[in-house]
Amino acid sequence: MLAELTIKGFLAETAGSAPVPGGGSISALNGAIATALTEMVANLTIGKKKYADVEGQMKTIATEAAIIRERLIRDIDRDSEAYDRVFAAFKLPKETEEEKAERSRVIQDATKEAAMVPMQVAEEVGSVMETIIYVAHKGNRNAVTDACVAMMAARTCVLGALLNVRINLTSIQDEEFVKRMSEKADHLEAEAIRIEKKLLDWVREELKIEN
Amino acid sequence: MLAELTIKGFLAETAGSAPVPGGGSISALNGAIATALTEMVANLTIGKKKYADVEGQMKTIATEAAIIRERLIRDIDRDSEAYDRVFAAFKLPKETEEEKAERSRVIQDATKEAAMVPMQVAEEVGSVMETIIYVAHKGNRNAVTDACVAMMAARTCVLGALLNVRINLTSIQDEEFVKRMSEKADHLEAEAIRIEKKLLDWVREELKIEN
Repeated sequence: MLAELTIKGFLAETAGSAPVPGGGSISALNGAIATALTEMVANLTIGKKKYADVEGQMKTIATEAAIIRERLIRDIDRDSEAYDRVFAAFKLPKETEEEKAERSRVIQDATKEAAMVPMQVAEEVGSVMETIIYVAHKGNRNAVTDACVAMMAARTCVLGALLNVRINLTSIQDEEFVKRMSEKADHLEAEAIRIEKKLLDWVREELKIEN
Repeated sequence: MLAELTIKGFLAETAGSAPVPGGGSISALNGAIATALTEMVANLTIGKKKYADVEGQMKTIATEAAIIRERLIRDIDRDSEAYDRVFAAFKLPKETEEEKAERSRVIQDATKEAAMVPMQVAEEVGSVMETIIYVAHKGNRNAVTDACVAMMAARTCVLGALLNVRINLTSIQDEEFVKRMSEKADHLEAEAIRIEKKLLDWVREELKIEN
């Protein structure tokens, strides 16, 4: 499992001349980073008198973010595995007409799967972004920049995963599938950019006022 | 050393209720991720006939990115250590006038250091962004989305590090220092946003055309 490598080791694996782990796994990792920082902000808020009125919400957020983090840690591998399956499909025999048809079918299925895995990641982390807005505004004030970094990591995750969706869509023949996924990607992308910008603009003003 | 933790372990440390590792270390980690993906794109380009004319540049890029990656891996710790020093300074005795003055001086010095560490990170990774533009345009076409994820990670690193610079500037009394660092931060921030947008806009069009 990639997440059981040390950070140093994982980065060395990434840097090497194999195409995986690559942008897809890094996107999932950034999703896991976003949830970890969200948990931290919630944990730094829990138990503080000043924030007693949001104590319940922060506990729920910390618990839920931990569950999503575990899922995203598994997605670091799932993304690389989906890529490997496409790669393996291209190596199937293509001598006879029958083999050609079978190979083409397996490639199409594997490519659809390779588009669906990052789409799930983008949807999951897209929904986490609203939680990050909440902890940034209501959580421990000293951790507001940590919430911002969580948000940027979430944006990288969503946009990076959607790039992987789109690149796979370019070789899928099922037009209905491509249209549906493409529209969903457009929507998630626009939302991720909008929500991150909203938070960063707000924090920029906040830090200016204190100056 | 934080980078010797497993990814799982590092994320669990981040999620916990201690303020470090937090946004600062995660920013440095994203810088290391950006360089690792840049190396990967260069490595996937080296040795391919189609890209023979950029072979030399790609080798140089891979070598230099590896060196910067090692430095950023150390910065994951340096950022948390700088935070710890500020925290320790606040715990110094403040009974006598002399102690108060000394404590204040140590806090100011530690806070300046805590602003300078992320500023160095932002400058270093800001300069990597132009290299990422190069590998995205001239490198292995199959890895163009990996270059984009590298760019997004670099943006998170620069903007996240600069947030840490700014939050520290809010408690530094040396006005000349604050002015100089603040102007530098404004410039680096604007550049990081501009360069990332340039690449993502280009790739969005590229992926559309192929559709």
